[in-house]
Amino acid sequence: MKTITVGLLGCGTVGTGVARLLAENRDLLEARVGAAINLKYVADIDTQKDRGVAFAPGVLINDAWKVVNDPEVDIVIEMIGGQGIAKELILAAIARGKQVITANKALLAAQGKVLFDAARAKGVDLAYEASVGGCMPVIKTIRESLVGNKIRTMTGILNGTCNYILSKISADRTPFEAVLAEAQAKGYAEADPTLDIEGLDTAHKLAIISALAYGTEVNLKDIFIEGITRISPMDIEFAETFGYCIKLLAISKNLGDAIEARVHPTMISAGNLLSNVNGTLNAMAITGDAVGTLVLNGHGAGMMPTASAVVGDLVDQARNLVCNCGPRVPALSYQPERIGHIPVMPISAITTRYYFRFAAMDRPGVLSKISGILGNHGISLKSVHQKGRSRAEGAVPIVMLTHLAKEQNVRLAVNEIMDLDVVSDRPVLIRIEDENDKD
Amino acid sequence: MKTITVGLLGCGTVGTGVARLLAENRDLLEARVGAAINLKYVADIDTQKDRGVAFAPGVLINDAWKVVNDPEVDIVIEMIGGQGIAKELILAAIARGKQVITANKALLAAQGKVLFDAARAKGVDLAYEASVGGCMPVIKTIRESLVGNKIRTMTGILNGTCNYILSKISADRTPFEAVLAEAQAKGYAEADPTLDIEGLDTAHKLAIISALAYGTEVNLKDIFIEGITRISPMDIEFAETFGYCIKLLAISKNLGDAIEARVHPTMISAGNLLSNVNGTLNAMAITGDAVGTLVLNGHGAGMMPTASAVVGDLVDQARNLVCNCGPRVPALSYQPERIGHIPVMPISAITTRYYFRFAAMDRPGVLSKISGILGNHGISLKSVHQKGRSRAEGAVPIVMLTHLAKEQNVRLAVNEIMDLDVVSDRPVLIRIEDENDKD
Repeated sequence: MKTITVGLLGCGTVGTGVARLLAENRDLLEARVGAAINLKYVADIDTQKDRGVAFAPGVLINDAWKVVNDPEVDIVIEMIGGQGIAKELILAAIARGKQVITANKALLAAQGKVLFDAARAKGVDLAYEASVGGCMPVIKTIRESLVGNKIRTMTGILNGTCNYILSKISADRTPFEAVLAEAQAKGYAEADPTLDIEGLDTAHKLAIISALAYGTEVNLKDIFIEGITRISPMDIEFAETFGYCIKLLAISKNLGDAIEARVHPTMISAGNLLSNVNGTLNAMAITGDAVGTLVLNGHGAGMMPTASAVVGDLVDQARNLVCNCGPRVPALSYQPERIGHIPVMPISAITTRYYFRFAAMDRPGVLSKISGILGNHGISLKSVHQKGRSRAEGAVPIVMLTHLAKEQNVRLAVNEIMDLDVVSDRPVLIRIEDENDKD
Repeated sequence: MKTITVGLLGCGTVGTGVARLLAENRDLLEARVGAAINLKYVADIDTQKDRGVAFAPGVLINDAWKVVNDPEVDIVIEMIGGQGIAKELILAAIARGKQVITANKALLAAQGKVLFDAARAKGVDLAYEASVGGCMPVIKTIRESLVGNKIRTMTGILNGTCNYILSKISADRTPFEAVLAEAQAKGYAEADPTLDIEGLDTAHKLAIISALAYGTEVNLKDIFIEGITRISPMDIEFAETFGYCIKLLAISKNLGDAIEARVHPTMISAGNLLSNVNGTLNAMAITGDAVGTLVLNGHGAGMMPTASAVVGDLVDQARNLVCNCGPRVPALSYQPERIGHIPVMPISAITTRYYFRFAAMDRPGVLSKISGILGNHGISLKSVHQKGRSRAEGAVPIVMLTHLAKEQNVRLAVNEIMDLDVVSDRPVLIRIEDENDKD
């Protein structure tokens, strides 16, 4: 029986999960692949730490270059992260004709083209299922299962930290800061949670899948990104009274001559299949011209779910090696010469529905002033709600839901409203995606 | 550019969808595959019917054998159905070295081994994604994405007709017969709905995925099958008062030395991700040792969603042909020599929770008699509900929920209870699957 030799670079949480899964399910993998998978090296700076996995002598080393330079290694798994040494090692492994697997979404979103071009030139595969949605087979589903479809829209909950925080604010009515601190204590949020809570991690994933689905280059800087730090229990409570919940969504739409690609807190209706996705779970709805809508739901992160995705890639590559077959599936789903450039629509040009919350003085005529400004900008209201009487500081929350409106007009109107004497604080603006709501 | 030549056998609903998708997305497929897909033949008995697809002269023929005998044809798509001529044609296509795609779950569940053995002996691929769950990539997810996992359990809503009927009874409180008639009028149920409503279609799919997931031969006759014809609005109403809904589930569990494989109406809690899957939608939850639980949700049937799955298989095979690569993925997920035989547990041996509804005379001591019998058989009750006073005929419904109990004991107890003078009618027994309920 053939042996496939594997080298793992980086043995942090996911790397350890990969090593564990390869050890625990060694026999099962052999039965399914028809080849033995031999993890020859695990390279990490820290060779002393007990990871709960028994490595044979000589497996755990601290020299990553030894792995990419060993001619025996067929497949290199990069689990180091970041855009520095990880990129160098991936390029070196490709140059030496090795298949490569990575979960490095930041690197792929920012510099994917260089890596994919190098892999293609060398005729090796660069796999990255684990970069988006952990155990959910997002990449495989887009590139293979739905390959016959024109993908129209993709809507995803792609960051477990944000989803945990929003679910928790929603369940307990606790303010953002307190929930974040709790999430950090539980290990659901990093010590520096910026990448997650500001939406950048979600945007990395959105860039990758938008490129894949539409056959276009997507520049990360064209993606509109708004994080969850301003979401308050009050807005979640209002959302619920209208039958909505708030999720941090990655939203991608192909309009033909332009694409929408945006990340922001979004109200979705309780009937939406994503609305029941709570805690650290991720989910992804993909709509294509033939399939209608397909939804995937699972653990988007974590040691073993992410390891499962990495091992899925590993087996794909091992099966190719067993058949002496090169990369079968184009890395970006389209043949490279067929990848075009569909511009990403600026956020000001999108049309959607909006939720506003203004803190306004409880005086006669306030509502008429605000709605007058909205009307002047062509924004028509679906409903208006004023809850309770003024609080101590003399302001009451006024909440409005709009029909479809253009973001540019909304922003102009909100700026004018902010200038009113009777409006205090910055208004809250949350976009609504409601596929059932016919305007 | 290479051309892949395809022949389609059978141009009913799904066949027409495949022809349409290949025509409408021809350019997209070329961009993604790097080869042209040429649909050379569409063979059907009826060559006159207008299918809304423009075929070039000579494409639509009535001789299926011409397709399998044409040396130019690379891939044969069997959409005829049934276990007669369809099987002959598939075997003939395999014998002539062609790749084959089918959605014929009845044939695969009953005689899959013969077909897969033939394909393997000839070194061709026999693909069947469309046989289970329509557009949901169930087969690919088990065989490829989750290949690193020991699959523990699979729970699926795999028949759109049944799910539509149960959803409708639940929403409108209309009896089964009326909803079935309506479903037939709307085209959601066949004129002869037996295969669907009696659970056999679901069992075919369960046999296929259980074999795949666990590497075992599964004999269709070992699967316990109970349809939905006895589900009444009253039981759905009771279910809701306990926080449950009723779905026809395919349930498959690998216990190591035995597997459970059963199809029956099942109560699941409102928190279960399958509970929100309504109408004709299908869904599938797969639990593995590394991924935890992954849920797929989508259109399990219908012209275009099923065509999407067929075209996904077609592209997989086309990509292999472009790379001169044989079948990379074992048809049944495991190398043939590693497929074993794990026995299917008889239904009497399973342990689960139960819902009973008895129609009993409203007399003193009835409850004590019934619960006494249950207790004698070691069945402990979680709750007992008696709703309302006796109706005209003097019987009241008594509803009981049990803790975990062995089916064999439950059956013995129910038989004894039926023999009581005070119990009229056959009791209703519905199994409960509640992963959150710690007994």
